Amino acid sequence: MTVATLEVPPASPRVTGIRSVTVIGSGVIGTSVALAVRRSGAEVALIDADADAVAEAERMGAGVRFTPDTPPADVVVIATPPSSVARVLREAQERGLGAVYTDVASTKGVIVAEAARAGCDLTTYVPGHPMAGRELSGPAAARADMFAGRPWVLCPGPGTPWEAVRPVVELAEACRATVRLLPSRRHDRIVAAVSHTPHLVSAALAARFAEAEETVLSLAGKGLRDTTRIAAGLPELWCDILEQNAEPVAVVLDEVVRDLTAAAAALRSGGTDVLKDLLVRGNRGRHRVVDAFPAAESAF
Amino acid sequence: MTVATLEVPPASPRVTGIRSVTVIGSGVIGTSVALAVRRSGAEVALIDADADAVAEAERMGAGVRFTPDTPPADVVVIATPPSSVARVLREAQERGLGAVYTDVASTKGVIVAEAARAGCDLTTYVPGHPMAGRELSGPAAARADMFAGRPWVLCPGPGTPWEAVRPVVELAEACRATVRLLPSRRHDRIVAAVSHTPHLVSAALAARFAEAEETVLSLAGKGLRDTTRIAAGLPELWCDILEQNAEPVAVVLDEVVRDLTAAAAALRSGGTDVLKDLLVRGNRGRHRVVDAFPAAESAF
Repeated sequence: MTVATLEVPPASPRVTGIRSVTVIGSGVIGTSVALAVRRSGAEVALIDADADAVAEAERMGAGVRFTPDTPPADVVVIATPPSSVARVLREAQERGLGAVYTDVASTKGVIVAEAARAGCDLTTYVPGHPMAGRELSGPAAARADMFAGRPWVLCPGPGTPWEAVRPVVELAEACRATVRLLPSRRHDRIVAAVSHTPHLVSAALAARFAEAEETVLSLAGKGLRDTTRIAAGLPELWCDILEQNAEPVAVVLDEVVRDLTAAAAALRSGGTDVLKDLLVRGNRGRHRVVDAFPAAESAF
Repeated sequence: MTVATLEVPPASPRVTGIRSVTVIGSGVIGTSVALAVRRSGAEVALIDADADAVAEAERMGAGVRFTPDTPPADVVVIATPPSSVARVLREAQERGLGAVYTDVASTKGVIVAEAARAGCDLTTYVPGHPMAGRELSGPAAARADMFAGRPWVLCPGPGTPWEAVRPVVELAEACRATVRLLPSRRHDRIVAAVSHTPHLVSAALAARFAEAEETVLSLAGKGLRDTTRIAAGLPELWCDILEQNAEPVAVVLDEVVRDLTAAAAALRSGGTDVLKDLLVRGNRGRHRVVDAFPAAESAF
């Protein structure tokens, strides 16, 4: 079955039917979801292996610590690192923590396959990816408006009923995001291009300055600062993300390497046409990226 | 002679001895220099083959059109594309347009060699590079505060007397920049790392989106927007810059390609250590770049 790209219009009047959410993982994304959901009036229970992280999220008003008495939630949000999602989902479903389950990991295909192998109930699992974030981590970096105006991709499988998808759509709308439905493989190819490969390329640029002299650093400008910003992401988390989306990222990386290898050869041989062609394509791509961001300046 | 890196302290009290400047080239950099110099009280004469560009710069208060009656200036600033600097310098010196000459091109070694070959008088030429700029072009994008707080590198040759260097230092200080003295080859290697290679890498990332579908573009975020920002630079100008600094850029590009090729292989073979190592080096490099920018947020 081919699922077309579908922008889901917000329910009108905009009221959410979600009354309770359990968020597993009190990092920057999990706590931001919790803060946004709390603003919409729903109850939030928080779970994290790190008691300090839960306490910090509680202090920020993100909800209350999960206890054995916490009733099953309308939606359980798994906001743990990508490689742990399938295991956490299986355990949450076994404990009956909620009616439906979603996650916020930035890769989908591998996690869905792992969840199937782990014996998870895929009819109550709606894989998700809120496409926002900060290079900062931990609950203190969370913001209730993190997802406002940003895309939130959901990748329900062909066997997932709409009654399982609907509460997750409402969760995303409670966070003021725009819901997009995509097949998981298509999602993975897109994020490889718009997010994961740029991260590796930014790291490869920034790596040139790991041991740089002060004189070199003192002459850096805004261009280098912007191109290396996302290299500040947590190496452990990003290694996990990249390995979960390995082949799609490698394919885009190959294209970048091909262009840069040709550019280096052109610089040495005076191949002006090759250089100019890359710069013109880059120019055009940049303009298309900017045009897709009508309200870019205010988004962050 | 080895010229050590030297940060020149501002003259105290901060008064400039420059009374007249002629700026050749009314693009974004030339007009910004003119606006900044005008603010310091000096006279500015403007020259550009494009009469509209001069008219626009005049309207912005950057100075007045150069005429045959314009007396020789204290400093002549050549703000034309890198590949034209030596020719323009030769002609300006032959016409006796000023006492000393400088340029603002972002490469230095090739231009100095071309100037020597062209028979320019190197005792009155102080190669310069104000390290600021915008991805926008033309006089309308100029700003009087473009260089405030930014480094302005000067690369005087071993035979250039201090009385020729001093007025150019004063020009940069009138633009509120911080003057740095560097040998031209060292300057070129540094800008290859902090500016020219990032430009090509940003173009190679942005080029992936030259023909991208709307669905892909609609899922792009701030990470892609930041990493591709400098790819918006003019392809013709950047091709010129890159070819004038070809070998230093190719050397840094080789390093980036090596890291990215290894990353693609590691993604396919499960080489976690290689990926993690790149991300950790990127992280460290990014932090060093940021630490070198104490007042980064306010600079632009």
